Amino acid sequence: MKIIHYKEVEPKYYETGTAQNAWGRVVIGKADGAENFCMRVFELHEGGASDYHQHDWEHEVFVHSGHGVLVTDEETIELGPGNVVFIPGGQKHQLRNTGKDLFIFVCVIPSGVPEI
Amino acid sequence: MKIIHYKEVEPKYYETGTAQNAWGRVVIGKADGAENFCMRVFELHEGGASDYHQHDWEHEVFVHSGHGVLVTDEETIELGPGNVVFIPGGQKHQLRNTGKDLFIFVCVIPSGVPEI
Repeated sequence: MKIIHYKEVEPKYYETGTAQNAWGRVVIGKADGAENFCMRVFELHEGGASDYHQHDWEHEVFVHSGHGVLVTDEETIELGPGNVVFIPGGQKHQLRNTGKDLFIFVCVIPSGVPEI
Repeated sequence: MKIIHYKEVEPKYYETGTAQNAWGRVVIGKADGAENFCMRVFELHEGGASDYHQHDWEHEVFVHSGHGVLVTDEETIELGPGNVVFIPGGQKHQLRNTGKDLFIFVCVIPSGVPEI
């Protein structure tokens, strides 16, 4: 069993592609014995964004705090605390912070792909 | 793609075993095309608790809001917003609300087991 606060994990700074002011943490992964799926927590600072990209695997996202948007080729959708997003594999996507506070979300991925 | 607020999903009331004042929602599951893992959101009201039980599959938990505890045979650990818990398969466990506000947490499970 593992019990932590997500902030106890050393964050990784993202600067690939269109990512900026973005930090991510693997909070539960292979190293913990989690064989099926991996939980990450991301913090987008003011003006921050994840990379606008696509990949074969899905995301299951839960927005913890702050305000942002999900951007796809088709639409831009506002997100706030309690919002849930299922992004299937192959769907191009980006999350952006549109507020002044941290935009914090949980993002779960299947095992067998890069954890972060 | 699916984008909702978790409260848009009809909740299921839990009254099995030692569960009480507990509500759960499947927010991303098989019906959405999620083939690998399933995201649920639980709300424990004041005095609420999940069933004290065990099963073969793991939980990956993220605490969204409120205050509670995780109870196992070995220990009782306080939880608050931002806490993360990995409960391996076979580990007996219960979550309890110890505050007056809702205790809200995300709980992810693998596919192939009951979603809720």
